[in-house]
Amino acid sequence: MLPDMISSYISDHLDVFTGELAQILSIPSVSTLSEHAPDVLRAAQWVFDQLKKNGFNGRIYPTERHPIVLARSAEVSGAPVLLLYGHYDVQPPEPLDEWQTPPFAPDIRDGFIYARGASDDKGQFLTYIKAVEAVVGVSGKLPINLIVLAEGEEEIGSPNLEKFLIDHREELRADAVAISDSSKIGPDMPAITYALRGLSYLQVDISGPRFDLHSGVFGGIVYNPAQALVDILQKLKNPDGSIAIPGFYEDAVGLAQWEREEMAAVPIDIDALKNYVGVSELTGEPGYSVTERNTARPTLDINGLWGGFSGEGAKTIIPARAGAKVSMRLVANQVPQRIDQMVSRFITDLCPTGVHAEVRGLYHADPVLINRDTRAMVAAQRAIEAGFGKKPRFKREGGSIPVVNLIKKHLDQESILLLGWGNPDDGPHSPNERFSLDDFHRGIRTAAALFHEMAR
Amino acid sequence: MLPDMISSYISDHLDVFTGELAQILSIPSVSTLSEHAPDVLRAAQWVFDQLKKNGFNGRIYPTERHPIVLARSAEVSGAPVLLLYGHYDVQPPEPLDEWQTPPFAPDIRDGFIYARGASDDKGQFLTYIKAVEAVVGVSGKLPINLIVLAEGEEEIGSPNLEKFLIDHREELRADAVAISDSSKIGPDMPAITYALRGLSYLQVDISGPRFDLHSGVFGGIVYNPAQALVDILQKLKNPDGSIAIPGFYEDAVGLAQWEREEMAAVPIDIDALKNYVGVSELTGEPGYSVTERNTARPTLDINGLWGGFSGEGAKTIIPARAGAKVSMRLVANQVPQRIDQMVSRFITDLCPTGVHAEVRGLYHADPVLINRDTRAMVAAQRAIEAGFGKKPRFKREGGSIPVVNLIKKHLDQESILLLGWGNPDDGPHSPNERFSLDDFHRGIRTAAALFHEMAR
Repeated sequence: MLPDMISSYISDHLDVFTGELAQILSIPSVSTLSEHAPDVLRAAQWVFDQLKKNGFNGRIYPTERHPIVLARSAEVSGAPVLLLYGHYDVQPPEPLDEWQTPPFAPDIRDGFIYARGASDDKGQFLTYIKAVEAVVGVSGKLPINLIVLAEGEEEIGSPNLEKFLIDHREELRADAVAISDSSKIGPDMPAITYALRGLSYLQVDISGPRFDLHSGVFGGIVYNPAQALVDILQKLKNPDGSIAIPGFYEDAVGLAQWEREEMAAVPIDIDALKNYVGVSELTGEPGYSVTERNTARPTLDINGLWGGFSGEGAKTIIPARAGAKVSMRLVANQVPQRIDQMVSRFITDLCPTGVHAEVRGLYHADPVLINRDTRAMVAAQRAIEAGFGKKPRFKREGGSIPVVNLIKKHLDQESILLLGWGNPDDGPHSPNERFSLDDFHRGIRTAAALFHEMAR
Repeated sequence: MLPDMISSYISDHLDVFTGELAQILSIPSVSTLSEHAPDVLRAAQWVFDQLKKNGFNGRIYPTERHPIVLARSAEVSGAPVLLLYGHYDVQPPEPLDEWQTPPFAPDIRDGFIYARGASDDKGQFLTYIKAVEAVVGVSGKLPINLIVLAEGEEEIGSPNLEKFLIDHREELRADAVAISDSSKIGPDMPAITYALRGLSYLQVDISGPRFDLHSGVFGGIVYNPAQALVDILQKLKNPDGSIAIPGFYEDAVGLAQWEREEMAAVPIDIDALKNYVGVSELTGEPGYSVTERNTARPTLDINGLWGGFSGEGAKTIIPARAGAKVSMRLVANQVPQRIDQMVSRFITDLCPTGVHAEVRGLYHADPVLINRDTRAMVAAQRAIEAGFGKKPRFKREGGSIPVVNLIKKHLDQESILLLGWGNPDDGPHSPNERFSLDDFHRGIRTAAALFHEMAR
């Protein structure tokens, strides 16, 4: 349900809203690089100013690294409470030379806005703030109590959010939580996500000789750390694409028959997918469909590799060190800490004499499965129908939203609405990330409708 | 034989000579990096000025990249002709943070001079120029005709030397060639090198998706180029350390019994070696001794690895590309071009569907075996005995000196003297490269003695 006057207000203000989206996207709030800390703070201030303008009370809370914004709408006695979570930090934009326009100079082309963070998560998060502006602009106040919690550390695993949730547990009490940091199934196929994969992200460092050696003088007698690294990494997976670490699949909950049927019912254009990605063939664990493999099955990927000489020309050395970033996507009920131990032991056992292996966990996220049988879920389904003109489907998503676990754990909150407005090819974490202006518009309408559906 | 007055002259001028060595070592003549081209030219000019000062006639010849110096001493009619080859370019100094003092600010500590190029090859090459200065200073002229050929592209595989040798074939006609770009067996164990390993240096580039992908969205369905790279590189070697490429060892000439005995007769302190390198265990092809493995057997090393994210923190991507530099040390009669084809085919065949492998040869050097039964070899043995106070041993060396192949081929020259003044732990191509001032001194005396022995 979306009152006509609010619907008109949103349509009339779309250009202004888009301009404001471009403002926040211009701030290079890359949380993993310490030199961008002032930019993350700037993004927090921008969000907070927007909320204050609409009658919210709250604060920007400093943490050990990047600040957290917490603000609450004007009290509506007896009305339900919705907690909205979003993040204003972004992934690093590299490789820069693959962007058609600079990552922090938002560019509008063919109905999309292109910038780092366009979809993940600035664009999606902003829909709620603009919905608030529309509802307050027309009605003077919201029909519910809205708490906004926004952080600047999502892309580095939210290291300071946990303590914040514990410290502010009472202020964060709500009937449901809404997060729009995922995607629809397709441009005109809205969805509610009920499962997320977890993550275990490791760094492997192999050290050998105490400095780079001349390969003519020492070739044939010294174990090469780069060779040790590839020997180890090669053994993490089986030739068929499945993961070879003993016990890795032990705790993984398999797919129910109804889920496999639901996934099979959604058309997927394999040729279009291959064309978009630019590969001639897809691959993966045998016995599962593409949708099952990239949303509902655990996976392992090498995210980065380094060692020795990578410059122009040739340098004949045995490198002193080599390393890799390796991460695993997990499904219920795999436990990241247990996976870490399993992989660390596996790697350490494989490490040959003459070199040394060190494995460090960089971060964790538990896999998530959400109860689809709640009042908030009904409200969300109706709101999406009002905003997008279609009933949503239920789907699993292959990525992680670590905050979901924290909210479940520390706020005892099981009623979590994962409502993605983006498209699967928006390219979060990739060059030329984008967000459809049509989705931005429909997302604002859906958020406004959600406030009213929750109030019924 | 070294006349007393010349011997005294050298001793008296040692400080001056060392100061001049520091001058040439201060020039960062890194040939592989185009921004250092002016420095390579500066080094050429420095060498040429030294020769002119001692009565040489010649020129600095431009090439397509770095210049070549060719100069000839004042004619001594009827005397033998010695061609001296050296190079004034150096390897890149990286990693810079492992140098105790900056690579191009020569520092003298404990009787060694520390700088990039100290041993390879500026320091060793300079001994001949200073020997000329001593002999000319005392006698007014050399007892032989000396041709000096010095280049600035040795560390990048001498791409312009071949054409130069062909074009200047007549001017380069000589009775023997001397090159000091190798090392003794130990500080007090001088040696003449009679075998060098060849080299085949390749770059492997694996490409997959057309940009970096979010591993949550695409993990499980897209073949990861970094995984493809490690899967391929792992298969280049057998678990026992031998090379697994079919046919790789086919053309390799095995060791003669006398060579194995000669090698076994030279003491090698394995613990000191391990300690110097900083590893707990040595490794390599089964069935061969350490000296055999690092001088007389073919080897394969990964010289560099790259792909995806290697910065601080975590980035959850499937990289679009990954790559490696891989090189093989070869022995007589392996043919680099044949090895390249073999390895390229092996890698291409291993490359899985969904990614693409490209293999490029970056450079080649044929393995070398030199006849030890020549008049020049006898002169060199006597000169070393005069300069170092000990008879030299005959030894194989694990590195390559590609120019040796070019000289053999284009100058029809088989009488090649590989006379290393350096020590095995001088660290050429490593941080903190150094050259013993005692070896610098003895090298100058030996070079002066060689001119006289050749003239007998």
